Amino acid sequence: MKFGVVIFPSKKLQDLANSYRKRYDPHYALITPHLTLKTAFEAAEVEAQEYADKLRRVAASHKAFTLKTSKISSFQPVNNVIYFKVDKTDELTALHNEVNQEFTEQNLEYAFVPHITIGQKLSNDEHSDVFGSLRMTKIDHEETIDRFHLLYQLENGSWTVYETFRLGKE
Amino acid sequence: MKFGVVIFPSKKLQDLANSYRKRYDPHYALITPHLTLKTAFEAAEVEAQEYADKLRRVAASHKAFTLKTSKISSFQPVNNVIYFKVDKTDELTALHNEVNQEFTEQNLEYAFVPHITIGQKLSNDEHSDVFGSLRMTKIDHEETIDRFHLLYQLENGSWTVYETFRLGKE
Repeated sequence: MKFGVVIFPSKKLQDLANSYRKRYDPHYALITPHLTLKTAFEAAEVEAQEYADKLRRVAASHKAFTLKTSKISSFQPVNNVIYFKVDKTDELTALHNEVNQEFTEQNLEYAFVPHITIGQKLSNDEHSDVFGSLRMTKIDHEETIDRFHLLYQLENGSWTVYETFRLGKE
Repeated sequence: MKFGVVIFPSKKLQDLANSYRKRYDPHYALITPHLTLKTAFEAAEVEAQEYADKLRRVAASHKAFTLKTSKISSFQPVNNVIYFKVDKTDELTALHNEVNQEFTEQNLEYAFVPHITIGQKLSNDEHSDVFGSLRMTKIDHEETIDRFHLLYQLENGSWTVYETFRLGKE
């Protein structure tokens, strides 16, 4: 089965992301808006406990940090994902790196570009239209992130939270 | 905003529940299969932290327990909800009661009938048809529950996990 590690931002930012995802993201119903710390990876269900133990230790050694997003970007030409660009702070990068180091199966396909997806799987034409109309949108949002989550995927594609990890807490 | 407290069972039981929910439950895309410990209640976002503190203490004072389900039942004639009936054990009842006592706004509309919904909002005719074909289905499932979750609802109706609480852990 598939696991993943994400940050769910505040309700306010999730609601804003969903106002776009509703139209532009076919994963809209499978998971609520999130920032991915570790992309989906295969593991057995019995390993969840062990991963959670590791991630709990990672969380304990990091502190709550500020997440800031100010603009909408796209991964074009790599792919047609449109997202809220999240400032790449030292704290977030350190957390991302340590979470990924905890898993032997390294799978860092891309350099870490912290983001919250608001559109994906668009055709090239759709992408051009949508991103063209959104690229100048100003977003001025800042919040404190004090937790992240280990998830697993069900057969229908939707994601369930296995456990929450609070930054700076045992 | 709305909060709720639920148990997410194992992937196996969630997948089984979803095989029915896909057809019979309009909430299919809003939340993964769950057993409700506290039904949705209104609170301010800033209160989440305080609720989490309380629920963490509740979790610490309970132990992991066995969840068993063996049949499909319905709340007819009260409503048209079809569900996996979960055995009402002392541990589960005690957990349910303590979770609900932690909130001043008591909202125990129904006696506690532990269940995992697989169908709802069906017309009377649909309910009769569906439940008629499912009522003899035998389910033989047992698993260990060692955690529960505090959720909040987004504007689009979907639910995000705020925090996980592990039974018997600080």
